[in-house]
Amino acid sequence: MSQRLFNFSAGPAVLPVEVLEEARDNMLSLGDTGIGIMEHSHRGKAFVGVLAQTEADCRKVGNIPDNYRVLFLQGGASSQFFTIPMNFLSSGDTADYLVTGAWSKKAVSQAKRFGTPHEAASSSDRNFSYIPKTASYSDNPKYVHFTSNNTIFGTQWAAEPEPPSGVPLICDASSDIFCRPIDVQKYRLIYAGAQKNLGPSGVTLVIIHDDLVKAGALDIPEMLQYRTHAENDSCYNTPPTFGIYIMGLVFQWILKQGGLEKVEQANREKAAVLYDHLRESPLFEATADEDSRSLMNVTFVTGNPDLDAKFIAAAKDQGFDGLKGHRSVGGMRASIYNAFPKQGVEELVKFMKDFESQNG
Amino acid sequence: MSQRLFNFSAGPAVLPVEVLEEARDNMLSLGDTGIGIMEHSHRGKAFVGVLAQTEADCRKVGNIPDNYRVLFLQGGASSQFFTIPMNFLSSGDTADYLVTGAWSKKAVSQAKRFGTPHEAASSSDRNFSYIPKTASYSDNPKYVHFTSNNTIFGTQWAAEPEPPSGVPLICDASSDIFCRPIDVQKYRLIYAGAQKNLGPSGVTLVIIHDDLVKAGALDIPEMLQYRTHAENDSCYNTPPTFGIYIMGLVFQWILKQGGLEKVEQANREKAAVLYDHLRESPLFEATADEDSRSLMNVTFVTGNPDLDAKFIAAAKDQGFDGLKGHRSVGGMRASIYNAFPKQGVEELVKFMKDFESQNG
Repeated sequence: MSQRLFNFSAGPAVLPVEVLEEARDNMLSLGDTGIGIMEHSHRGKAFVGVLAQTEADCRKVGNIPDNYRVLFLQGGASSQFFTIPMNFLSSGDTADYLVTGAWSKKAVSQAKRFGTPHEAASSSDRNFSYIPKTASYSDNPKYVHFTSNNTIFGTQWAAEPEPPSGVPLICDASSDIFCRPIDVQKYRLIYAGAQKNLGPSGVTLVIIHDDLVKAGALDIPEMLQYRTHAENDSCYNTPPTFGIYIMGLVFQWILKQGGLEKVEQANREKAAVLYDHLRESPLFEATADEDSRSLMNVTFVTGNPDLDAKFIAAAKDQGFDGLKGHRSVGGMRASIYNAFPKQGVEELVKFMKDFESQNG
Repeated sequence: MSQRLFNFSAGPAVLPVEVLEEARDNMLSLGDTGIGIMEHSHRGKAFVGVLAQTEADCRKVGNIPDNYRVLFLQGGASSQFFTIPMNFLSSGDTADYLVTGAWSKKAVSQAKRFGTPHEAASSSDRNFSYIPKTASYSDNPKYVHFTSNNTIFGTQWAAEPEPPSGVPLICDASSDIFCRPIDVQKYRLIYAGAQKNLGPSGVTLVIIHDDLVKAGALDIPEMLQYRTHAENDSCYNTPPTFGIYIMGLVFQWILKQGGLEKVEQANREKAAVLYDHLRESPLFEATADEDSRSLMNVTFVTGNPDLDAKFIAAAKDQGFDGLKGHRSVGGMRASIYNAFPKQGVEELVKFMKDFESQNG
């Protein structure tokens, strides 16, 4: 095997080595079953056990109450963008969206097909470089939707927004789920594509309160109703078994780290290495406001696109992969999800210092 | 690693050992990239290469003309059941369905939400134990839909049905795609969940003619429009990268076998071992009509449910896994997809003979 690079990809992204090794070792036979993990029937004892353990560990990691359902779906966050308004909005209904980047905007655009989305807050005035402090909610929104972390713009909500009393809070947590403890009871629905903090692309975690399961539309295809998947324990149709298995290994890895408190501590220390350097760097500058900076995606620039490109190319040569920022921000983006090792950030900062001295 | 069992599961199902070994060896680093296959960005050079090669090999395997698009989607065949009528039927429109089992019936039920499905043929009168010889098509169907192979009932179309001239033929080929050469030009849309002949669950292959891509509805969510995925080479959102990778390895395995002619020959020889024995067995009997029997799923019974159960338990003890038939047919089902080894069928027949002599 080649030496592993420091993979700063925004997603699909780095996974814990222990998880990859475990998956590798179960490829031709899951434990002593004599059948590889991908080859097990989703109705068979072995996979039913994997699914039950994965759900149980997810509940343990997230401290998820019994009146929430944990679902493993397909289609990514992009499918949730339309499935949510399809289920909970009717023509004439309003839903409030807090718009903090490209993904929030996509969610808004899908809601327009089913009802009237209201942008209760937006940070578009300064290219989404901050999290709004206030929101002007509509009179009677069906729900409030926000994106907890914005991969492209390197911002993250420090705490949940406060929706009007009694209004369900819905969160796209694709890029920061389980990066820190989460108070699930503040939400009615949390969804996350797996490919940043949870596993491979192709499986979406949905944590949904029983009330919303019941409230969903009945006149839409069964596959798009949350109740279908809740009533069938995510096995109405064949679920993405391998992705669920990997997610289960990631949950076990989180528990082995000591749970989300420990994971948050590690993430804060890791991000601080980079943000502390950016504060004092003579060359590089963080693009997000100080109080809005993400623990998961650190965006920074030199202010000179040619120098950015030079840095990215030089870094790649040294084994720092995936640092190119999204075209809407430019510059660099270091995605440092749960599984990204602190050593990688420390070595990146060393490399940045070298680059500064040579290009100062 | 444990010794591998003979895995007769109907799906997820057995995969070629070479494919599993290759996946295992690329888990921590895809080739010499230093990044595991699951961890590569879907926009990065490595995965873009995997995707392009997978599509190219799929086109080679299936001899797919340039005016068809090859898409890698999520949600399984169950999502295609509603996506197809959502795209191609409006209120008042009729679509003809050839009903040969549980999956065809599910497809019909989803079409009712969007238009008027007409059952142009059905074998429900004899518990779907045969493929209908004739169909009474409606006057102006938008398409004709059929299920090429019926996992539960062990039947398979020997050749494509002949829809009325000019009417698009749509096929759910989930459980027999690429088990034999296919004349793609007879179809306008072929779809298949991967978890029988193509790879792990969680990725759906869709082969669709340009005309249908254009004909799809525009007033539905982008994620449910085929044009969205066609225009973005299956990367409108993050695709199920690992599943696509495995599918690519399976295509390479098929090409190494010598292509679909060779695969068909192997499948015919393999199925004949079992069907030949069933014709002469004093105890076991095939449930499907002789001319409708599936190369992929062989269903058989003793006529005595207690004896069936005894056989299944005894077989399991000897390393023949997943032989229990679906509850709607009872008895046994041996799923022997492309990757199932002939040796497994030969040993099963030996075991059946022993069982016959002890229970005759």
